[in-house]
Amino acid sequence: MSSTVGQVIRCRAAVAWEAGKPLVMEEVEVAPPQANEVRVKILFTSLCHTDVYFWEAKGQNPLFPRIYGHEAGGIVESVGEGVTDLKPGDHVLPVFTGECKECAHCKSEESNMCDLLRINTDRGVMLNDGKSRFSINGKPIYHFVGTSTFSEYTVIHVGCLAKINPLAPLDKVCVLSCGISTGLGATLNVAKPAKGSTVAVFGLGAVGLAAAEGARIAGASRIIGVDLNSSRFEEAKKFGATEFVNPKDYNKPVQEVIAEMTNGGVDRSVECTGHIDAMISAFECVHDGWGVAVLVGVPHKDAVFKTHPMNLLNERTLKGTFFGNYKPRSDLPSVVEKYMSKELEVEKFITHTVPFSEINKAFEYMLRGEGLRCIIRMEE
Amino acid sequence: MSSTVGQVIRCRAAVAWEAGKPLVMEEVEVAPPQANEVRVKILFTSLCHTDVYFWEAKGQNPLFPRIYGHEAGGIVESVGEGVTDLKPGDHVLPVFTGECKECAHCKSEESNMCDLLRINTDRGVMLNDGKSRFSINGKPIYHFVGTSTFSEYTVIHVGCLAKINPLAPLDKVCVLSCGISTGLGATLNVAKPAKGSTVAVFGLGAVGLAAAEGARIAGASRIIGVDLNSSRFEEAKKFGATEFVNPKDYNKPVQEVIAEMTNGGVDRSVECTGHIDAMISAFECVHDGWGVAVLVGVPHKDAVFKTHPMNLLNERTLKGTFFGNYKPRSDLPSVVEKYMSKELEVEKFITHTVPFSEINKAFEYMLRGEGLRCIIRMEE
Ligand SMILES: NC(=O)c1ccc[n+]([C@@H]2O[C@H](COP(=O)([O-])OP(=O)(O)OC[C@H]3O[C@@H](n4cnc5c(N)ncnc54)[C@H](O)[C@@H]3O)[C@@H](O)[C@H]2O)c1
Ligand SMILES: NC(=O)c1ccc[n+]([C@@H]2O[C@H](COP(=O)([O-])OP(=O)(O)OC[C@H]3O[C@@H](n4cnc5c(N)ncnc54)[C@H](O)[C@@H]3O)[C@@H](O)[C@H]2O)c1
Ligand SMILES: [Zn+2]
Ligand SMILES: [Zn+2]
Ligand SMILES: [Zn+2]
Ligand SMILES: [Zn+2]
Repeated sequence: MSSTVGQVIRCRAAVAWEAGKPLVMEEVEVAPPQANEVRVKILFTSLCHTDVYFWEAKGQNPLFPRIYGHEAGGIVESVGEGVTDLKPGDHVLPVFTGECKECAHCKSEESNMCDLLRINTDRGVMLNDGKSRFSINGKPIYHFVGTSTFSEYTVIHVGCLAKINPLAPLDKVCVLSCGISTGLGATLNVAKPAKGSTVAVFGLGAVGLAAAEGARIAGASRIIGVDLNSSRFEEAKKFGATEFVNPKDYNKPVQEVIAEMTNGGVDRSVECTGHIDAMISAFECVHDGWGVAVLVGVPHKDAVFKTHPMNLLNERTLKGTFFGNYKPRSDLPSVVEKYMSKELEVEKFITHTVPFSEINKAFEYMLRGEGLRCIIRMEE
Repeated sequence: MSSTVGQVIRCRAAVAWEAGKPLVMEEVEVAPPQANEVRVKILFTSLCHTDVYFWEAKGQNPLFPRIYGHEAGGIVESVGEGVTDLKPGDHVLPVFTGECKECAHCKSEESNMCDLLRINTDRGVMLNDGKSRFSINGKPIYHFVGTSTFSEYTVIHVGCLAKINPLAPLDKVCVLSCGISTGLGATLNVAKPAKGSTVAVFGLGAVGLAAAEGARIAGASRIIGVDLNSSRFEEAKKFGATEFVNPKDYNKPVQEVIAEMTNGGVDRSVECTGHIDAMISAFECVHDGWGVAVLVGVPHKDAVFKTHPMNLLNERTLKGTFFGNYKPRSDLPSVVEKYMSKELEVEKFITHTVPFSEINKAFEYMLRGEGLRCIIRMEE
């Protein structure tokens, strides 16, 4: 590996040239890492809705050509100046949001919203010099959320890399980079259901199923899955869900249905849909006196959360979380350990695998709503 | 005292015969306590906005004639069947909400919203037989929130009485029955500011000043008082407030003013106004990542709390509290001890004192917005 240190690496990357058009496998040049940067050889990556959302570029500023990808596992190839926490050969998970360890958020025990490295979907360049490390014949190709893992090599800020147990299989734990940890952490770190409690999970996509998995791990005795799509229910059983509610099956608000099922409301709820009506229902379905609702889904920019303030005065708590309140560098290694100790089951999230050359198939599965996570193997 | 046990007691009470009309001092008959009831000799009572609000009976079902009053201190005269926690001579604070110690709320560590004895402003009778213990010439006079302390003797459910240290001066600690504990507990039990943190308090009435007092006790380094009435600011300094904001002095939302003063927002805020715009501002002025907002004020019944869900997803927490999350029987004695150990200063809330015969003066002070608490001495 050392032969490439300080050199430009030429490798394959799946480039998005235009919004919504299939990615094109290109040979790209990847510049060496600068100060506080790390060049990583990606071994496995997976596809998340956020990649598809920004690739479709509906309603955001389109930034093309761009290399997407933010759920992945890889190995450090070389490190830039000032990087002391990582060295070549370390196993890492790239994360779309970072931890500088210096700002007020990083120093707070409660926050993971680093001032310096908080997710930025508009920026397509590195912080150090405001430029991209990717190019094709000298023409820059933009980064995505600081990770751009749809490339055999990528350059990432050291603050966006979690150093993990080298014994952990990267083809499995790569899915812990984003959505799975988000749902899991929303339950374990924020909702914190007590053993034996009742938890409602709104939205049974990968994030919601991870939230249910968190409730299962926490020992919840009832886990009520809520989704507008009843075809999600069978799969959700594998993630610990014990009961199901499809709001479409009732002619009253789902919060009332849940309150009736649970003698006044659930102890905890976790919203993983991104839809404002589900956010309001998730809040209003928790029990007065002690109920806690946690919002995870990313809402429409014009969405307004509305409720009668008495719902709050009756001692309900409403919180939101970002990346399950995990600090990427400090906390993600422990999530990997949960998998290693067999507490957390990751395999059931992985429904497909494709070689890198067939990455567009992963997009097709997701667009058709088929399966949960498709692993993309960089080595064919 | 034992001579009155089991007997009807004839004593003075201030009866509200009609909405908004001065109370009339009457001789009333107070029946002996029934099962789980206690007859209490009131020594001191004070006046709270809630008394005035229901006495004015604007917008609620009027229930007259009625004996108001719910902040008080007294001594047990006799106990009904099944009462084992209290005996004649015990010093007690009546509370408008109770603790049965049996229901899910009482058994939960997080809730104080007892299913059986939660505040009920519509009920004017005792739970045991659905009847009043007060009468004049056989005609019943209604109770108010289970306390009716504007009477020399009153009958109260054992679950609505906190047994306190007999050395505590009842003419001072009687104000801990309602508003002061509400504000204090909102800060100490719910907002829980860390030492050195920044706290905003919206509304500088008795409840808000008690919230500020809580922040002072918790060791907050900056306590920002917010009120539409700048004449509140001078007094608020005594309660630890260090800075003041009158939203009327700015042409931008007060949450923005506070964010600028505090490098992004306060660590904690406590809303004690009952106005929906203040509730929204109190939420939106807390720092992302770790800020917690606590709502205390009782809103208009048609009020709607509105915010963009991103304010939540950025890791802010929104909570409401009822009676400062204190369980009346379990926790109120410790609030009295905070006063006894000089940690909590109660005297500064007491701005007036009148003899019972002049109780209508206390109403006048409150209606004119003069002072904070007026103590009513039952013995002339
Ligand atoms: N906060 C974070 O850090 C973070 C990270 C990753 C993803 N997310 C967000 O989490 C959300 C879920 O992600 P996902 O990948 O699981 O999405 P997904 O689309 O796979 O799943 C969402 C599910 O919600 C269901 N749904 C939609 N509206 C509903 C409603 N009103 N009531 C009940 N169910 C409803 C859908 O049928 C679907 O099954 C998205 O909003 C995503 O942006 C947040
Ligand atoms: N939750 C409970 O258990 C409980 C118990 C007692 C009182 N309360 C409630 O607490 C609130 C405060 O009670 P109080 O006795 O201190 O009332 P108060 O009327 O004495 O004080 C309220 C203060 O808020 C100020 N104010 C009003 N609107 C404002 C705004 N938009 N922005 C800033 N300041 C504003 C007023 O000028 C006033 O000084 C009331 O709503 C009361 O019903 C709640
Ligand atoms: Zn940081
Ligand atoms: Zn993602
Ligand atoms: Zn109870
Ligand atoms: Zn009161």
